[in-house]
Amino acid sequence: MCNSHDHVRAVLWADDVLQLIDQRLLPLREEMLRLESSAAVAEAIRDMAVRGAPAIGITAAYGAVIAARQRYGEEADQWLEGFKKDLEQLRQARPTAVNLGWALDRMAVCAQELEGDPVPALLALANSIHEDDIAANRCMGELGSALISNGSGVLTHCNTGSLATGGYGTALGVIRSAWAEKKLVSVYADETRPWLQGARLTAWELVQDDIPVTLIVDGAAAHLMKQGKVQWLIVGSDRIAANGDVANKIGTYAAAVAARYHGVKVMVVAPSSTVDIHTASGADIPIEIRSENEVLSLGGQWVAAAGAAAWNPAFDVTPAELVDAIVTERGVIERPDRAKMAAMMS
Amino acid sequence: MCNSHDHVRAVLWADDVLQLIDQRLLPLREEMLRLESSAAVAEAIRDMAVRGAPAIGITAAYGAVIAARQRYGEEADQWLEGFKKDLEQLRQARPTAVNLGWALDRMAVCAQELEGDPVPALLALANSIHEDDIAANRCMGELGSALISNGSGVLTHCNTGSLATGGYGTALGVIRSAWAEKKLVSVYADETRPWLQGARLTAWELVQDDIPVTLIVDGAAAHLMKQGKVQWLIVGSDRIAANGDVANKIGTYAAAVAARYHGVKVMVVAPSSTVDIHTASGADIPIEIRSENEVLSLGGQWVAAAGAAAWNPAFDVTPAELVDAIVTERGVIERPDRAKMAAMMS
Repeated sequence: MCNSHDHVRAVLWADDVLQLIDQRLLPLREEMLRLESSAAVAEAIRDMAVRGAPAIGITAAYGAVIAARQRYGEEADQWLEGFKKDLEQLRQARPTAVNLGWALDRMAVCAQELEGDPVPALLALANSIHEDDIAANRCMGELGSALISNGSGVLTHCNTGSLATGGYGTALGVIRSAWAEKKLVSVYADETRPWLQGARLTAWELVQDDIPVTLIVDGAAAHLMKQGKVQWLIVGSDRIAANGDVANKIGTYAAAVAARYHGVKVMVVAPSSTVDIHTASGADIPIEIRSENEVLSLGGQWVAAAGAAAWNPAFDVTPAELVDAIVTERGVIERPDRAKMAAMMS
Repeated sequence: MCNSHDHVRAVLWADDVLQLIDQRLLPLREEMLRLESSAAVAEAIRDMAVRGAPAIGITAAYGAVIAARQRYGEEADQWLEGFKKDLEQLRQARPTAVNLGWALDRMAVCAQELEGDPVPALLALANSIHEDDIAANRCMGELGSALISNGSGVLTHCNTGSLATGGYGTALGVIRSAWAEKKLVSVYADETRPWLQGARLTAWELVQDDIPVTLIVDGAAAHLMKQGKVQWLIVGSDRIAANGDVANKIGTYAAAVAARYHGVKVMVVAPSSTVDIHTASGADIPIEIRSENEVLSLGGQWVAAAGAAAWNPAFDVTPAELVDAIVTERGVIERPDRAKMAAMMS
């Protein structure tokens, strides 16, 4: 069903240290960051050394372990108060991905129950969140691939692979599974401006897996669809609202609108931890606005005319009506709506 | 109606020399190219030192003057044969913009009639093509602005200003006129990957005119429209087919699909020389496929993973059914179709 060799790990806990591959430098340089404070973990999330909603959640869980270790070491009797402050700092690092808060909530609930050294139990929980995510990805890979007909072309947006998750990937996991099952004739990837997750990260992962990938500029997706070259748009999500509206990387909504216009189907692949049943609809999802410099410059080099402004929303919302299938590890929801989402999450 | 000061000229004939501002270097460097052979002119068009359908046509017309001067100087009796070869080389420089062939056809017809030194008459014709384009732009600026309600926001794609034309601009000319008439509350520009004409050229022109411009990544256009921030998408064209289908810079079609989905109107602004009555529909327009390196790198810096391929169509086709108005110097066609296009061009 899937490639047998291991994929890269974006997040690694080894020798009591949290290590992240610095995704800001890929694919030009492969450097590992070693993080020893929860403040450093929050900073790595904020500055996108690690990104992708599931990977952010896992990273934050390990960040909580680091926070507990430090706070308990400093003040074994009253460590919980400082720990909660650290969690709050981690929670504020990025606003849109709900997996961040979901993971931290689980860590906080667990911490509340502990007596004595909290680190072993919290580390076990973080490891479990990590391993569960990988298992969910494998499961979603199978479920999503089952929706795809033989001989299909697919388009994906942003990066949803091993780098964005615990391992394997959500949307890219489905593509990996479908490729392994020899269902795909072509895999296209939007380059995904401004951060170029498609060109830098998705292409890097697929090249390593010997899956041929063709990059396009984001603006070419509609033209590609018009040529009949893709049957599915497959994307991840940073938060799915209770009615099935999907927040994901900026440009997803444009691609979904084009997909509907061309009869291309839209598949959203995300673990159930991405579903936020407390957010009624997409209109209630906070959309992070990042620095205009991400649009105006690249790699420290200014590309835009001096004096120009930029508007840089990091995410957009695709309404449920444009989504053909939401795939989680709990199953597939076709034509999502509030009732189907509630039934899945109950 | 328009700003009183002169805008930059992309194409300049002075002291018997053709000069082009090298648009590959803008906005970081303003350098003029001096071209002294028609082969050099063809190369400048092919490599996009000059770009924009009307500017390409004007440049080619001056290229024909240079060709005639050289061929007549070498062989005054039989200059026409070599001249025709030079025109063919110019014609092949880029395939999609019909203004290139249109200008060269006019130069060829004129050359056929001449006796003695052909240069004065050909130069007069090239100057006239240039001046007519500027006059057409001013006219289109007024016509297009008249369609826009007070208090509107507009979005444009690629560069259609002085750099893309003889001067003033097509779509950007409409924006200039509407801004001067105080109709606009905001001007957004797609950065326009892969060549970044929006970030590098459109922003540069608007900053010089003190018109505030906000850049967005191409993938953010649909999200912008959903916010209700723009009422018009205003673009130029490289070729308009007999049925009103519009070829323009890659990404235009995606933006037009999103515009229709959101009830944003689409205005195409181009001189009548862009209308190719001999091309039945958009399906018959040749779409230039450019080097994948334009996608795999950004701002001269390699960004994509090694081993990734790219597909880089330079243009796409927006069907007439998605166009609300085509504005030429001959007038405005609303909801274009074959009959209306034929009536305008007759």
